[in-house]
Amino acid sequence: MSADPNGADWIAVDWGTSNLRAWSMTDAGDAVDQAVSDAGMATLKPNEFEPTLLRLVSSWLGGGCVPVIACGMVGARQGWVEAPYQTVPCPTGLSELVPAPTNDPSLDVKIIPGICQNNPSDVMRGEETQIAGYLAGNPGFDGILCLPGTHTKWVHVSAAEIVSFRTFMTGELFGLLSNRSVLRHSVDTDGWDANAFTEALDITRSRPESLAAHLFRLRAEELLQGQSGATGRARLSGLLIGAELAAARSYWLGQPVALIGAPDLTSIYSAALRTQGVDPVAADGDAMTLAGLIQARMAQGERA
Amino acid sequence: MSADPNGADWIAVDWGTSNLRAWSMTDAGDAVDQAVSDAGMATLKPNEFEPTLLRLVSSWLGGGCVPVIACGMVGARQGWVEAPYQTVPCPTGLSELVPAPTNDPSLDVKIIPGICQNNPSDVMRGEETQIAGYLAGNPGFDGILCLPGTHTKWVHVSAAEIVSFRTFMTGELFGLLSNRSVLRHSVDTDGWDANAFTEALDITRSRPESLAAHLFRLRAEELLQGQSGATGRARLSGLLIGAELAAARSYWLGQPVALIGAPDLTSIYSAALRTQGVDPVAADGDAMTLAGLIQARMAQGERA
Repeated sequence: MSADPNGADWIAVDWGTSNLRAWSMTDAGDAVDQAVSDAGMATLKPNEFEPTLLRLVSSWLGGGCVPVIACGMVGARQGWVEAPYQTVPCPTGLSELVPAPTNDPSLDVKIIPGICQNNPSDVMRGEETQIAGYLAGNPGFDGILCLPGTHTKWVHVSAAEIVSFRTFMTGELFGLLSNRSVLRHSVDTDGWDANAFTEALDITRSRPESLAAHLFRLRAEELLQGQSGATGRARLSGLLIGAELAAARSYWLGQPVALIGAPDLTSIYSAALRTQGVDPVAADGDAMTLAGLIQARMAQGERA
Repeated sequence: MSADPNGADWIAVDWGTSNLRAWSMTDAGDAVDQAVSDAGMATLKPNEFEPTLLRLVSSWLGGGCVPVIACGMVGARQGWVEAPYQTVPCPTGLSELVPAPTNDPSLDVKIIPGICQNNPSDVMRGEETQIAGYLAGNPGFDGILCLPGTHTKWVHVSAAEIVSFRTFMTGELFGLLSNRSVLRHSVDTDGWDANAFTEALDITRSRPESLAAHLFRLRAEELLQGQSGATGRARLSGLLIGAELAAARSYWLGQPVALIGAPDLTSIYSAALRTQGVDPVAADGDAMTLAGLIQARMAQGERA
């Protein structure tokens, strides 16, 4: 890492729905500076992306034209420019980037397309970059990648292709139920109870139909039995992840599994999978995003 | 119905989490006037209930002490006064009312307790009054009452007792997912597609584990296939109610079923149950609340 944040060789950008993050990169693939903003894609009109990025990275621009590689919702229909989905099966490499229109000559912006699947219908934007980053460090990986988050993805990778994937709204459901439903009175914002998690996980993994019946019970157990909010939190997480594991069984059963995400989330999914005899490896989601952006930049260089 | 709204013989009150409704009643059980307010239990401190009710019904007070019968969350721990739960099995009649403290001599307030169940833990407040109202009009009813709403209840009634019940958060989940999740882009606030409802219902009723996988698909089908928001709305409803029917199967299978609720909701549940060979009757939820409050008033009179 250089101490000089000026004069980026190129800029890596992770531009999601609610956040924007940029790194000043060297051609050798080192991040020498980073900048973050809450100017997520959801807050911007198409013509606001360029000035927003210019404000964030102006100190890294040295006068010439700097290449920018961006991933995430910035390439959605409501983003800077639509980067049409690639359709599975498709290579895990990121070679088909989409140029974004710019007025300022100091930026040359290219966006990584998302990936879609027609049957069953599914989409991703951003995770394809983390997948490429993981494959760069683990060439020849053949198995299942699980990317837990707001919308958890289970992805089958084989022979350097994304074969199929499936999205679960587990993270968003957990957030809505614990913050905005009647369960907010019975679910703390932190704290944990590992036994309660495992018990709840087992209920819905083995009898997934019982999810609907067990949610309100979290409230009743607090009212009638004094169940703690930490236990409520772990039980809610276990119920939702158990239902997800039941539905995603065809992905993880008998396959090598790697988890990509925030460490607090991958550790919960690791614990859940270990109850099923699966021993996953874990990789940090932010590191995989940056590794994927570097892969995309290298693939561009090879084409130039 | 009398045209004179003054001088209530007694006052019936349905005081829920977010709304308050009162009726000016005659001893013969006729409602001669009604008043509504958004001063729900969630917005009030314990000492604010009496002045709130006095403001709402002041024009009905003729000088003497008027009996008031109230049901709903007004009897919760955070309400006017806690009306401790009755525990199942318990009679469908409403004889054990709890007096609420008052300063003004013109009101004599009694609150209908909720009902709880210890294993599995569950609670209700307000539905017990609708159940009593339904039994008043259908004496000897033996079977299943389903009360669809924010928190749908399935209730087994036999020999004039509530035997057991189970709560499902289906309505609250539908509201959160359609208004606050990523699915809000793909689910309209009205419109319907009866075929899509039935298809989605069948998916989760027969394979309840697939609920977790099918939710995000609603978003993907809109993005990739142009699925309409009306179809998205009906599919989301079908997925959630199908999962509920799968979990509540031991309630409705082979039993007479009566639905109590808002007509738009009971018609959806009727359609769902008819696909399973169950042909439920339906009763209006508001009418059953008032009928239950009248039952409670009559039971008080008999004890006096």
